[in-house]
Formats: sequence, C-alpha cells, structure tokens
Amino acid sequence: MAQRLDHARRLVEPALRLAVTRLDPITAARAGYHFGWLEADGSAAAAGGGKAVRPGLALLGARAVGADPEIAVPGAVAVELVHNFSLLHDDLIDGDAERRHRTTVWALWGGPSAILTGDALLALAQEVLLDVPGPTGPAAARLLAVATRELIRGQIQDMAYERRPEVAVTEVLAMAEAKTAALLSASTAIGAVLAGAPADAVAALADYGRHLGLAFQLVDDVLGIWGDPAVTGKPALSDLRSRKTSLPVARVIGAGGAAAEEVAAWLAAGTEADEDLLRRIAEVLEEAGGRAWARQQAARHARSATASLDRIKAPADVLTELRELAAFVVGRET
Amino acid sequence: MAQRLDHARRLVEPALRLAVTRLDPITAARAGYHFGWLEADGSAAAAGGGKAVRPGLALLGARAVGADPEIAVPGAVAVELVHNFSLLHDDLIDGDAERRHRTTVWALWGGPSAILTGDALLALAQEVLLDVPGPTGPAAARLLAVATRELIRGQIQDMAYERRPEVAVTEVLAMAEAKTAALLSASTAIGAVLAGAPADAVAALADYGRHLGLAFQLVDDVLGIWGDPAVTGKPALSDLRSRKTSLPVARVIGAGGAAAEEVAAWLAAGTEADEDLLRRIAEVLEEAGGRAWARQQAARHARSATASLDRIKAPADVLTELRELAAFVVGRET
Repeated sequence: MAQRLDHARRLVEPALRLAVTRLDPITAARAGYHFGWLEADGSAAAAGGGKAVRPGLALLGARAVGADPEIAVPGAVAVELVHNFSLLHDDLIDGDAERRHRTTVWALWGGPSAILTGDALLALAQEVLLDVPGPTGPAAARLLAVATRELIRGQIQDMAYERRPEVAVTEVLAMAEAKTAALLSASTAIGAVLAGAPADAVAALADYGRHLGLAFQLVDDVLGIWGDPAVTGKPALSDLRSRKTSLPVARVIGAGGAAAEEVAAWLAAGTEADEDLLRRIAEVLEEAGGRAWARQQAARHARSATASLDRIKAPADVLTELRELAAFVVGRET
Repeated sequence: MAQRLDHARRLVEPALRLAVTRLDPITAARAGYHFGWLEADGSAAAAGGGKAVRPGLALLGARAVGADPEIAVPGAVAVELVHNFSLLHDDLIDGDAERRHRTTVWALWGGPSAILTGDALLALAQEVLLDVPGPTGPAAARLLAVATRELIRGQIQDMAYERRPEVAVTEVLAMAEAKTAALLSASTAIGAVLAGAPADAVAALADYGRHLGLAFQLVDDVLGIWGDPAVTGKPALSDLRSRKTSLPVARVIGAGGAAAEEVAAWLAAGTEADEDLLRRIAEVLEEAGGRAWARQQAARHARSATASLDRIKAPADVLTELRELAAFVVGRET
C-alpha cells in the first residue's frame, strides 16, 4: 500500500511543486517547508512529505472509470493543496507546534505566516483546476469548493464540541463526515469528474470516499487512545490527554451506566493529565465496549465503501486496489 | 457617488446574504456580524455595511460592455466575499481590534474564528461563481483566484517591508498594486467576463481598475498622514503612528537629502509615538514634497484609468460614471 501511494506521489509531486512556484517566493518557501521539500533555511530537505492518500485516491478515481490516471493529476494536486491549507490553519488553531516530527509553520515563522500560506494554497487549488481546458476543470473546482465548505463546517463543529460536556455520537459522526470524510470523498470523485465520467459513477466514487473517510476517522480515534506510541509516533493515550470527545468516548457516554458516569465525570473535572487516571479511563472505555464498537463501525464503513464500487464497472485491478485500500485503512496501526 | 454605491449594494446584498446562508450557522453569524448585518448576539443590526466599491465596479463593468448589470451580480458577490476574507485575516494579522467603529471578529470571538470565517468566505466566493451556468462563471472564478494570489503576495510584501529600514518607491508601488489594485482590477473586469465580453474589453476594464486601485492607495496614504480625524474617522497621523512605510514616506526617503535622513532616522529609532515628533515628521514629509507627489501620482493614475476606457465603446452614461468614480477617488477626504 505504501508503495502504491509512493507511486502516486511520484506522479503528482512534480505538478504540485510546479503549482507552488506560482506563489510569491516567501510563501513558496514556507509551503515547500510544510510539504517537506525544504528545510527552514530554504535548502533542499533530505526526504519527507505526507502519505499522499488524497492524491492516490484522485488517480484511482480516474482509473476506476477507465481513464488514464494522468487526467486526474490537477485534481490530485488540488486536493493535496486543500488538505495542506487545512493542516496549516488547524495547526495554528490547535496550537500544535509539531507535525511529522517537524516544527510547524506557525511555530517557526509566526501565526500570520501560517494564515497567509494556507490562504495561498486554498486559492491555488482553485486556480490549478480552472486551468484545465474544457468543462471538467470547473466541475472539479465546484466539487472541491463545496468539500472545502464542509471541511470548515467540521472544524467549526469540532471546536464547538470541545466546549460542551456531552456530545451525541451522531454529532461527532456528522463532524467527522464534514471534517475528514468530505475531502476524502471529493478526492475519490475528482478524478472521475476530470475524466468526464457520468454523474452516477462520480456519486458511487464519492460514496466510497465518504465511507473510507469515516472508517479512517474511527480507526484514528481508536489509535488516539489505544495506539502503540512506538508505532503511531504519537504519545500514548494522546486523545485522552487532550480531552478530545472522540467517537469511542461519545459512544460510551451516550450508552449511559456506570462507565458513562465515570468518563463524563473525568471530562467535566478538567484536571491536569494524571497518567494513572488516563490509563484507568482507557480501561473503562474499553470495558464498556468503546474500542470494539469503533472497530466494528470502521469495518462496517469499509464494507459500505467497497459495496459502493458495485455501482461502477471498474477495471479488475483498480477494484482490487480500492478494496485493499479500504481493508488497509481499517487494519492500520499508525 | 455614495448614492450610486448604495444602489449597487441594494442590488447585490440580497445575493450576498443568500450565499452566506450556505455556511454553517456559527460561521454565518460571524460573517453576518462582520458584514454589519447582525449584532454580536445574532440580532439584526440597525444599519451598516461597507462602501460596496468592489460590487459597484463589477456592475459597472457589465454595463460598460452593454450588458445588464444583473449578469454581474455573482461577480459582485464574489469580489465582496474575497475582500472581506482578506479583511478578516488582515485584522487578525495586524492586531486591529476595531473596524468601521465595531469590534473585529477576532477581538470578539478569538483568532480561530477570524481564520475560519475568512477561509469560508474565500471558498464561498469560488462556489458562487462556479454555480453560474456556461463558460463565463469558470472564467470569472479563474480571474478571481489569480487576483487572490496577488492580494496575498501584496500582504506578504507589506509584512516583509515593515521589517526593513528602507524600501524603494517601486517596491511599495508593486506591493500596492498586488494588495489593493489587483482586486479592484478583478472587480471591474469580472462583470465584463460574466457578460461574455471579448478579451480586449476585459483587459481595458482591468487596466481601469488597476489604475483606480493605485490612485486609491496613493490617496489613502495621504489621508493616513494628513487626513482630518473628524472626516476620516481614524486617529490623526495614524500611518506615522504605526510607522508604516507608506508611499509618501518611501518617496521622500528615496529622494535623499536632509529630509530623507530625518525621516529615515525616525523610522530606524523605533521609539514610542511622541505627538510633537509625529507632527514634525508630517511637516518634513510635506516640505520635501511627499504629499504633493502622492496627490500628483494619484491624479496621474486616475487619468490613466480614464484613458483605458477609450479602448471600449461603453454607453455614455456608464463612461460618465466610471470617470466620476476616478475623480471621486482622487478627490475624496475619507
């Protein structure tokens, strides 16, 4: 899987780098640092870059409707630009000073730098799609603008829920659908849109991406509590440490009973992180079925993602890749 | 002039309000407050809103090529959304707690609110244009995406120049062209693009808007130093107080001599604002010709704006309005 995503990155990265050269030199340098291409001093970075999940989905979406993956490259570039616009702004909003073991842009160059670099990537995403000749570029640009609106809605909901003691599972799911799944959905659909595929094929791929996104978030929330720090690279119990109302937490509180009361009381207390208490809460959540439920829900969404593919006549090798990707998302440990 | 812009606002505001209802309720409320439609508690505001210069230009651009101004409404909405995206982010970046005698969004609801509300308006601007059927919407969206890139470039340059002791007039002019004139240029051109006008007519209107924008900035810089607080609503000597390397300052420093040395020394000292010293610097700048030069340059750009109109066959009443607008920008005292 990592090899396939690496292949996608090799196909997309030159176009992404070329797009970024349109920006003013200061913003291009900060974006290049954020993407992992440059060091903070502007010199070339040894290696780096994210997992390129979204570009990979864009290329798969084109191949799924029988088109050459090349046709999806502007879409792959655009979804990666929007994803990184949101990372730049979210890191600042959340006060995260580190991402992928590197200092974040705001922590290096200040908040205004992160704001403006993010803004530039968002505008550039639209520009790249609107440069595509014919009617498919604008259709892809519209799809992405709507997904961006959803992504912002999700971020707003996330922040609103942080201030509330009890949040329903349906609310957290709706938030995850907006914040995470909308862009993964658009990523899978955009390749088919650029290939000029009919609306029902685009809708099927959009559904695949949406379910994949929900499965991804459910597993992310499991790893955020029970993930192995040696594998995830994040501190142990990290989502409990930050008092995040993740999906397993919302599920256990929503189910009521003694476990719900204990978890809700811990959330409401708002005390400093105590390792023993955090471990105890993780145990309570697991015993109350929060972990198993999230894994089951993730598997269910992965199955729904795969089932969406029955509505299109994709080449056999592409179907296999899309199915394996869904299985990988559910099974991953990082 | 105020009456005409008010007329433009009445035509455009319903569409602008409708577009904002697409956003999540929290973001829509913050945007509504920023636009002056709502109070901070969500109740309807008595009055308010900006001058609607950009929407007015968009409608004029359509009429200039013989089209119905209605056709330019999505363009007018989109340029106003981009303008306000930039105000929301700039107020946060500059730490300005007040705009149009009201507390700014970041000062009321925090930095993340201003970041996300701005982001939402930027994405929405594209969405509104991409909803226009046919090929003119995407062409307008592309024009606006490029203008947004320029606007961000200008903001980046502005911040970079704040940290340098000496900035050349050409650099400050290039910054003003990117930060202010690019969006005014796009505003004038976008109405003609939506009307499906030929490229040379669009280019002539873009040139008009660009020169108008430069004239606007030159006058803005004059008012920022010598404006009457009772008329401008800003504190006296406000651009000197904030140590801004505005166009008159760059001009006087660039010309060399005793005045240049005195102004450069004051800028380099970076001391607290002393009223007597600020008044003295304003005098030195005026005696060295900084004020007269800026007014002359503004008048020159207003003439160039008007001359651009010779390249199109606009209806007589539209020509009159565009000429009067250029004269108004140069003559304005607020």
